[in-house]
Amino acid sequence: MAVSYDDVLAAADRIRGRVLRTPVVEVGEGLFLKLETLQHSGSFKVRGAFNRMLSAAVPDAGVIAASGGNHGLAVAYAARALGLRAEIFVPEVSSPVKVAGLRALGADVTQTGAIYSEAAEAAAKRAAETGALEVHAYDHPDVVAGQGTLGLELMEQTGGVDTILIAVGGGGFVAGVTVGSGASQGAPVVVAVEPERCPTLHQALKEGRPVPVAVSGVAADALGASRLGDVAYGIVERAGVRSLLVSDDAIEAARRTLWAEYRIAAEHAGATAYAALLSGAYERAPGERVVVVLCGSNTDPATLG
Amino acid sequence: MAVSYDDVLAAADRIRGRVLRTPVVEVGEGLFLKLETLQHSGSFKVRGAFNRMLSAAVPDAGVIAASGGNHGLAVAYAARALGLRAEIFVPEVSSPVKVAGLRALGADVTQTGAIYSEAAEAAAKRAAETGALEVHAYDHPDVVAGQGTLGLELMEQTGGVDTILIAVGGGGFVAGVTVGSGASQGAPVVVAVEPERCPTLHQALKEGRPVPVAVSGVAADALGASRLGDVAYGIVERAGVRSLLVSDDAIEAARRTLWAEYRIAAEHAGATAYAALLSGAYERAPGERVVVVLCGSNTDPATLG
Repeated sequence: MAVSYDDVLAAADRIRGRVLRTPVVEVGEGLFLKLETLQHSGSFKVRGAFNRMLSAAVPDAGVIAASGGNHGLAVAYAARALGLRAEIFVPEVSSPVKVAGLRALGADVTQTGAIYSEAAEAAAKRAAETGALEVHAYDHPDVVAGQGTLGLELMEQTGGVDTILIAVGGGGFVAGVTVGSGASQGAPVVVAVEPERCPTLHQALKEGRPVPVAVSGVAADALGASRLGDVAYGIVERAGVRSLLVSDDAIEAARRTLWAEYRIAAEHAGATAYAALLSGAYERAPGERVVVVLCGSNTDPATLG
Repeated sequence: MAVSYDDVLAAADRIRGRVLRTPVVEVGEGLFLKLETLQHSGSFKVRGAFNRMLSAAVPDAGVIAASGGNHGLAVAYAARALGLRAEIFVPEVSSPVKVAGLRALGADVTQTGAIYSEAAEAAAKRAAETGALEVHAYDHPDVVAGQGTLGLELMEQTGGVDTILIAVGGGGFVAGVTVGSGASQGAPVVVAVEPERCPTLHQALKEGRPVPVAVSGVAADALGASRLGDVAYGIVERAGVRSLLVSDDAIEAARRTLWAEYRIAAEHAGATAYAALLSGAYERAPGERVVVVLCGSNTDPATLG
């Protein structure tokens, strides 16, 4: 279940040319934003989706996934690019923008269940019937290794940083980036940021293992995994990743600031890591080099202004 | 009136740390987008504004400018950063978003005249009364040199390109980038892109000198200079820059595609260069390395979707 730096390097080779090497912008001396908001399908999730599909033998039934939205979009995008059939299960609360986006990518979409875990159960049942390859949203080593490619990139692009601020849902992204950035070998430091109302990693670290948590709030559509992944927990616990909580108000403010100052369109989850900096939940030391990962942009633009 | 490569290098030193080194993203092999949409004040104009103000002795009356909007925002932004008073004259057609933005930056705003040239006349008259430093929107060597810093950047960031696609209004930007990229020394090739309904450079090249043109259409608020600048004309004519025209429909389509594919928020002017590529008005040769400059993002986000 472990994911190594070599696994991330292999993933980077596997998905090269299929995902964007998203740019980094230095907005203050030693303060970088990693614009994964520009990634294909609107979030980092396409990295893990491609790596999972390109690491496995995919049957004729294609691939199947359950997702609050971004992972589903990524699986649909990657499946289309690879000529595979995709079935996506999403909770009933998923935004109309995301569901329309899935269908536009050619996926078969089923909306079922009140929350992510219920959609995931339905997808698992369907996969057992059809034999389709399950692409988990976070709890699979190939998915984690794919997400980790962003960690490789940002260290190259910034010339190295001291600290990475990154949002957490199910933990696949933070775990991958912990490995891919070198943080699991000691540096840089990865600081996870979670909405107060989606404290999945926070609770896991507190209780010493992944536990079910109640999730709600403005970023729950993307960060609302109700239990941290086991693959992720092993990695981030060993690496000493800590979790900061931010309020929904801080997330809203961060999202508005990214638009007003830089015309960066971020969804609430995509602005969550920046909220830690803007609200003061994370205090940057003098001279500290920090990169903030802006992880997704699947949002209604009318709500940005 | 000429602007040299050394002038652009000097401008880059002068404005360093005050403007963003905006990122470049490679969206296909050898196809780059320069994201000047993320620049402070929402467009490239802040480069020229800072260079002009930092190259001159500014009187107590401060600075004054006339602008369809983006230049005004840039002058207001730069003046605030430098602690200078700013008076901005804009045509009555300027978008409410832009006028509100100017006032939020602390500028004194006067809306007068149906088109840019009328606002410019009023500003010139006011400057003669107060002694304020006029910051022209495009027709001044220091402004052109400042805009040219983007040309330096994109050649470094891409590792060199064959072709630069860039939108044209009054010509300050295309002229600066022609010098700063090295195009005025022979390479790369700069291809200007203009809306059919704002053919300022197109007409100037056709008639062998800057001439008054009628301007209208979706990008006229930013590209609607009614006569090309003399500084710009001298530079681009000597460098053999050619002008392609694109329709308003092509600009609209380019703007929608930038949002749908990459979540890049571009105003109509900001998407105009990309329209040449997307519509086929510019045909990229096999293996040709092309950078498309996305120059502005001062737009109502509700109109992006």
